[in-house]
Amino acid sequence: MSQNQLDKKSEAWSALFSEPMSELVQRYTASVFFDKRLAHADIEGSLAHAGMLAAQKIINAQDLADIQRGMKQIREEIDAGTFEWKLALEDVHLNIEARLTQLVGDAGKRLHTGRSRNDQVATDVRLWLRGEIDLIGGLLTDLQKALVEIAAKNADVILPGFTHLQVAQPVSFGHHMLAYVEMFSRDAERMQDVRKRLNRLPLGAAALAGTSYPLDREMVARTLGMDGVCQNSLDAVSDRDFAIEFTAAASLAMVHISRLSEELVLWMSQSFGFIDIADRFCTGSSIMPQKKNPDVPELARGKAGRVVGHLMGLITLMKGQPLAYNKDNQEDKEPLFDTVDTLKDTLRIFAEMVGGITVKPEAMERAALRGYATATDLADYLVKKGLPFRDAHETVAHAVKAAISHQCDLSELPLTVLKGFHASIEKDVFDVLSLRGSLNARNVLGGTAPTQVLAQVDRHRKRLEQQAG
Amino acid sequence: MSQNQLDKKSEAWSALFSEPMSELVQRYTASVFFDKRLAHADIEGSLAHAGMLAAQKIINAQDLADIQRGMKQIREEIDAGTFEWKLALEDVHLNIEARLTQLVGDAGKRLHTGRSRNDQVATDVRLWLRGEIDLIGGLLTDLQKALVEIAAKNADVILPGFTHLQVAQPVSFGHHMLAYVEMFSRDAERMQDVRKRLNRLPLGAAALAGTSYPLDREMVARTLGMDGVCQNSLDAVSDRDFAIEFTAAASLAMVHISRLSEELVLWMSQSFGFIDIADRFCTGSSIMPQKKNPDVPELARGKAGRVVGHLMGLITLMKGQPLAYNKDNQEDKEPLFDTVDTLKDTLRIFAEMVGGITVKPEAMERAALRGYATATDLADYLVKKGLPFRDAHETVAHAVKAAISHQCDLSELPLTVLKGFHASIEKDVFDVLSLRGSLNARNVLGGTAPTQVLAQVDRHRKRLEQQAG
Amino acid sequence: MSQNQLDKKSEAWSALFSEPMSELVQRYTASVFFDKRLAHADIEGSLAHAGMLAAQKIINAQDLADIQRGMKQIREEIDAGTFEWKLALEDVHLNIEARLTQLVGDAGKRLHTGRSRNDQVATDVRLWLRGEIDLIGGLLTDLQKALVEIAAKNADVILPGFTHLQVAQPVSFGHHMLAYVEMFSRDAERMQDVRKRLNRLPLGAAALAGTSYPLDREMVARTLGMDGVCQNSLDAVSDRDFAIEFTAAASLAMVHISRLSEELVLWMSQSFGFIDIADRFCTGSSIMPQKKNPDVPELARGKAGRVVGHLMGLITLMKGQPLAYNKDNQEDKEPLFDTVDTLKDTLRIFAEMVGGITVKPEAMERAALRGYATATDLADYLVKKGLPFRDAHETVAHAVKAAISHQCDLSELPLTVLKGFHASIEKDVFDVLSLRGSLNARNVLGGTAPTQVLAQVDRHRKRLEQQAG
Amino acid sequence: MSQNQLDKKSEAWSALFSEPMSELVQRYTASVFFDKRLAHADIEGSLAHAGMLAAQKIINAQDLADIQRGMKQIREEIDAGTFEWKLALEDVHLNIEARLTQLVGDAGKRLHTGRSRNDQVATDVRLWLRGEIDLIGGLLTDLQKALVEIAAKNADVILPGFTHLQVAQPVSFGHHMLAYVEMFSRDAERMQDVRKRLNRLPLGAAALAGTSYPLDREMVARTLGMDGVCQNSLDAVSDRDFAIEFTAAASLAMVHISRLSEELVLWMSQSFGFIDIADRFCTGSSIMPQKKNPDVPELARGKAGRVVGHLMGLITLMKGQPLAYNKDNQEDKEPLFDTVDTLKDTLRIFAEMVGGITVKPEAMERAALRGYATATDLADYLVKKGLPFRDAHETVAHAVKAAISHQCDLSELPLTVLKGFHASIEKDVFDVLSLRGSLNARNVLGGTAPTQVLAQVDRHRKRLEQQAG
Repeated sequence: MSQNQLDKKSEAWSALFSEPMSELVQRYTASVFFDKRLAHADIEGSLAHAGMLAAQKIINAQDLADIQRGMKQIREEIDAGTFEWKLALEDVHLNIEARLTQLVGDAGKRLHTGRSRNDQVATDVRLWLRGEIDLIGGLLTDLQKALVEIAAKNADVILPGFTHLQVAQPVSFGHHMLAYVEMFSRDAERMQDVRKRLNRLPLGAAALAGTSYPLDREMVARTLGMDGVCQNSLDAVSDRDFAIEFTAAASLAMVHISRLSEELVLWMSQSFGFIDIADRFCTGSSIMPQKKNPDVPELARGKAGRVVGHLMGLITLMKGQPLAYNKDNQEDKEPLFDTVDTLKDTLRIFAEMVGGITVKPEAMERAALRGYATATDLADYLVKKGLPFRDAHETVAHAVKAAISHQCDLSELPLTVLKGFHASIEKDVFDVLSLRGSLNARNVLGGTAPTQVLAQVDRHRKRLEQQAG
Repeated sequence: MSQNQLDKKSEAWSALFSEPMSELVQRYTASVFFDKRLAHADIEGSLAHAGMLAAQKIINAQDLADIQRGMKQIREEIDAGTFEWKLALEDVHLNIEARLTQLVGDAGKRLHTGRSRNDQVATDVRLWLRGEIDLIGGLLTDLQKALVEIAAKNADVILPGFTHLQVAQPVSFGHHMLAYVEMFSRDAERMQDVRKRLNRLPLGAAALAGTSYPLDREMVARTLGMDGVCQNSLDAVSDRDFAIEFTAAASLAMVHISRLSEELVLWMSQSFGFIDIADRFCTGSSIMPQKKNPDVPELARGKAGRVVGHLMGLITLMKGQPLAYNKDNQEDKEPLFDTVDTLKDTLRIFAEMVGGITVKPEAMERAALRGYATATDLADYLVKKGLPFRDAHETVAHAVKAAISHQCDLSELPLTVLKGFHASIEKDVFDVLSLRGSLNARNVLGGTAPTQVLAQVDRHRKRLEQQAG
Repeated sequence: MSQNQLDKKSEAWSALFSEPMSELVQRYTASVFFDKRLAHADIEGSLAHAGMLAAQKIINAQDLADIQRGMKQIREEIDAGTFEWKLALEDVHLNIEARLTQLVGDAGKRLHTGRSRNDQVATDVRLWLRGEIDLIGGLLTDLQKALVEIAAKNADVILPGFTHLQVAQPVSFGHHMLAYVEMFSRDAERMQDVRKRLNRLPLGAAALAGTSYPLDREMVARTLGMDGVCQNSLDAVSDRDFAIEFTAAASLAMVHISRLSEELVLWMSQSFGFIDIADRFCTGSSIMPQKKNPDVPELARGKAGRVVGHLMGLITLMKGQPLAYNKDNQEDKEPLFDTVDTLKDTLRIFAEMVGGITVKPEAMERAALRGYATATDLADYLVKKGLPFRDAHETVAHAVKAAISHQCDLSELPLTVLKGFHASIEKDVFDVLSLRGSLNARNVLGGTAPTQVLAQVDRHRKRLEQQAG
Repeated sequence: MSQNQLDKKSEAWSALFSEPMSELVQRYTASVFFDKRLAHADIEGSLAHAGMLAAQKIINAQDLADIQRGMKQIREEIDAGTFEWKLALEDVHLNIEARLTQLVGDAGKRLHTGRSRNDQVATDVRLWLRGEIDLIGGLLTDLQKALVEIAAKNADVILPGFTHLQVAQPVSFGHHMLAYVEMFSRDAERMQDVRKRLNRLPLGAAALAGTSYPLDREMVARTLGMDGVCQNSLDAVSDRDFAIEFTAAASLAMVHISRLSEELVLWMSQSFGFIDIADRFCTGSSIMPQKKNPDVPELARGKAGRVVGHLMGLITLMKGQPLAYNKDNQEDKEPLFDTVDTLKDTLRIFAEMVGGITVKPEAMERAALRGYATATDLADYLVKKGLPFRDAHETVAHAVKAAISHQCDLSELPLTVLKGFHASIEKDVFDVLSLRGSLNARNVLGGTAPTQVLAQVDRHRKRLEQQAG
């Protein structure tokens, strides 16, 4: 074997350079300490590339066998934690290639034929992210299932529905939980859309212009389970849309988490007292002995900012970059990695925590009685008696005013007083004025009536079963 | 007809309020001066709602006829600019409803039966945005077509392909243009994905809980051309995912515009001199009489920041909001409207401007000769002679070093000198060292060889024809 | 007078251009419809420039008199709304200069001597923003004063202090209000720092390189009340730090507003019921007749996102721009203008609204009794008896556990039970366990004891009086 | 000594909790693996607190001595890398306190008297960040010095000054470098403003309300070199303004770095060829043997996005948080730490790299000759002959048009031709039309004439010397 050029990378980048890279620059520009996370994707991509090179007779069968043997060992070394990552070799790609050449000689030096680190890293990140998206999909399903089950158990529990955080109308607690199922199911859809656009092969674009070797790019795509190849080499190496699109989808998922978190924190506050969260998800205080704090939802709410920050960072990164590859792009990895980690950890912990919520129906119902939550029902009652909606709305406002001055609920006003607001009001009005009457009345598709909630629970269970299956 | 409650909105919001809204608050909270843009969508949604109310016997046929008649007139007044928008009526919804009641009496007051402004505004924004997405789709097609045509004309023109803004390898100018076609075609895909998730009906969710009237939500969805209904009323009124998802897609499109702009500005700079942009897209200077500035791409590059800012604003808006509707959500409109306007104006002007670009092939080719753009070809040549790629790479680095010290191109080194770097180098090396030889050699799918470029031109033409059709 | 070149701007930018600007481009690139807001600053800057040109004998006394006369009339036309703004003249600067030349002939054409629109617009924006910062300073003072007064009135009112939204320790409601005074006073400091860096003169930098006329830049700076001149012409025309720095300061102010808003919304929610906000700051619902919604704080919370979005937009705008002036910079204005408007409107409305808050001390105190808010006091009591703090902390945790199982407060446990946790507990423990005892005990600088609160009220009153004076 | 409660933290948070924290939650909520960076600040703060507790007789002299002895050992263990950080102890504070108690018994348990982790962490972060700001100040000075020196050496070198990246007017390369000195000197000012607002003491605020111990907060502030104490305990524990303000200042510094980077990348591109960057700051390509890429400025340009992302994340984090401390705040640390690291690394490497720039005056001057850079000088010449500026401007546009059609520079047009544009043009016009004549003419304060540049060099040298001194 000829000498291994990568062995002397620490001395000088190539024959062309008159001085070695400064130590400071080496640390500033190296990526190996974070991009080694791509090692398995890098090896998978290299093996697919090598297989194709052999099929196309660009390398011979022995070279391929050597590469496969070397990569097998490298994989084992990485898994065992014995692989020695070298800063001087800059990144995951050169580290693996250098070790391969050490292990198998010239075959290792032939692996890079017809490719460049530019298309290689683009391929690695896509392969890796595809795997992560699949894991995230599973976690989104788990979280939805947990929410569906708490909804199923609490379809009949009355919660004060808020708008503007003012008591608006009674809703089913199960219905409220299912609102989040809708959000997370949209997140899962979006992840699938990202995956679809991501699952195309950059390899074969080489540095930026394609290559003069007769590569079979579609063969590589098939080997790697990709849906097709990137159709333009310049775009293939410079595109980071998928990172931004993924992080935008992750940001939305975190926004949903932050909304759920806000509610959990509110509901666990003594003034609401609607729920309790199991001790194992809470912490105490170093000074106040009585404290039990909902740390997990608070922290998750905070982590929404973190992911949104990464989205902003990635967009700023790409803005105004000329084609094709620029070193700026190396900055795509850390925000992307951290977004994946944050989202996965958060989804996993929420799927568990939802099962640790204790619902306190009495407190919820008590709160629903503060705030004239059935006033709309009275207006609807009057409409059914023939009043135009706007007139009914105004009539009820007067009734509410009276109830406030009597310091009682609408349902506690005597019929005679109620009749004073409109002659058409009869005894049956009291059915309408109860929380449960109001809840059951909203029996429209997507409404909060328990029968609707249970129908949605069924639909979601089937849908989620299919996804998992 | 009973009195029109909306007439006295300026005095007091409802019977419940003891004092009128302060003037300052009225201006602070009113949205009519920007949300009147939703008027046509609002009317379309109201007519669908009214039609369903009549079909379900919730209002009678005469009411429906009155509403339709009134709405027809309102539409005409709006189109004619004679409709009087009132700040005191807060928003587009109440302005139209008040005018309707003025025109048709009690039927107008019945229109709001079974709905709330919460589900109404969510419906309006979705309808409006759906229409805008369709327009944007057309503009993206126009821009892609313009790029495909300039690519077709310039498939053979040699441009120095850059990585790190250093001359890397010769590429076809047409190929370079097609890289942007890939980007904008992904943008179009994303817009379709947003449309798919957006095109679901919130109406029927009422304030937050659904309604006690026997609405047929699916009928309304069909009337409005929507793909289905929102399945959870709380989610229906509080969801603004579509606004964020759209703005994220628009941000990516603007990032692509910013990259193209950066290149146009560079290329038109005297030091590059690769293109000229027609005078009608440029401006001069108030002080320097010789100046002709590429204002449009510069401004567009700047406008990328504007749209990204809106994305960040919208995410911040939604973060941590408890369910269901909060007034914060009113702040979704202005950034969304401005994003739509900015994106449409920019795409339209770029589709025109691309046709006004004059390509200067000599300058491009001259620049490609600076920078040893065919060094990779020499390495590939050596690989074909049997050297492992890494050895070939190093050998060529030495050759480049020699050429630099001779102040000539690789192709200008005598054969004997070249042979000094490796004995296998023969006379045929000079084919490989020419720019055109290099270009033609990259004849792999997605590569820069003119035949590949023309094949892509064909594919895009067909694809875009279908989309337009 | 020779012909007025600006009259024919709609036909062709200058003699150099072979075709007029496209209509579409004209609308895309023109700024006059938003930058006319700078008109008064533009005139002020022009007058200072002209005065200096005359002092330096670059123009003669008659020219200066003509310019002054013309500008006087233009100012009046603008104030009267009769000034005709023309899109074809692009921006506020050319509109005013063209009108000036119309009015006074060649003197108008001499005004632009030694300057460029690049340094002109930088000067205009700085002058304008300086004035707005001064107004914002006044509004921040007003808001602080309103908060100090509500604090003064409520120094003795007990509010449950929260950490993690769990009841932590009793605090004075006045103390809580003063926390916001601290925040807004930091905002005012930051605005002063922005002003300091902003108040330097770009004029004289001309297009980018300075000018060959013997300008006296320091004279212009003095005339305009600026603290000095920008020392580098390239920096002077390309710098937009002040816009970003201002918007960052505004974002922080809006973050503070959003935190206060969050609390107002929570406190007005029926479950808390701590405050009421006057009707004139609230709105009702189109469907729910009982609703009274805290629209102003909700909307303000949402507007925080808007301002943050502008900050992100501005940073993205400037990132990666080469020197000196680029057209991208025109995009600095709209976000800056909207930030100023949003911040001013919000501060003004909050200063008013704070006076419209009704405090409900009983509800606050009732809530403070839920959650063992004096547990820390018991721990501190034990420390004073000699226990190390960590042991005391653990002892009290056991006491709280007992109180929870007895469903009573710590202060309701019998002395004998308390003694069971630690023998050193005596009858005087009950002073410590009362809310008021706890409140008064925190009598450290910056603590919540009413005497401390009143001392702070005094300090703030004096400070704010000085600022206003 | 009594038992060490912190020893059993892994079993249950406190006596109040019925189950231990879940493993998953422990990892999700723990901060010790990143906040251990605050260890030295934590110890410094604890020692100041303990000293004051002893001075106030809250603990005795022996306790203080024990704490000091224990902390000395802990410091040594941390520096030696032998300190055992435990996840189960959550954060840096409890890790150190637990070890202290292990080492010195009850005195360790007394240290937390009168404080909480809420005020403790706020103090730690401020102390730590103050130190980092001082380091950053030094690095900003170093970078400015490097720029001043390259400016001094190149005051006479002619660079084409660009606006809109079109050749505008000749400028001194030294002048151009000094523009960045202005930017970085503003950054240094901003850092000082952040420091001023940051350097106030939260300790003594305890959990949120202050404490019942007779603390002397001002003594602690003096010990820690702080300018005063936070005047409101609720604000003290919930305020993160300083983190946002610092990150905003860092973002601006990175925006300046990104602008300089953009220019370095452009200038090193073969089409400009204005500079070379020393090999030790560049890297090569894995595929293209001839490449030498300006990795450092590219990567730095990308890192601007990273820091801006952190700013966005931090603002989003704080938006809408109710008082006082919430767990969300823990998310302030990682973005802040990474911002500090990124900024410091970048400033350090730029200060070095600036010295490794080779300036190529011939290429710069050649480029300045393309683009009629002295056209403004001709206009100014005509103004001095009596033409109003606008007329002169138009006249020169015609001259430029003629020169373009003759394919020559303005200075190459024969005098007779020039006279054709205006009769007042004499032979002395050629002085004005030379690049150097133009350069020297801009001899106004802040202008590009070499004498002005050298005067600024002097000013900066003195200023920077003082700062360092």
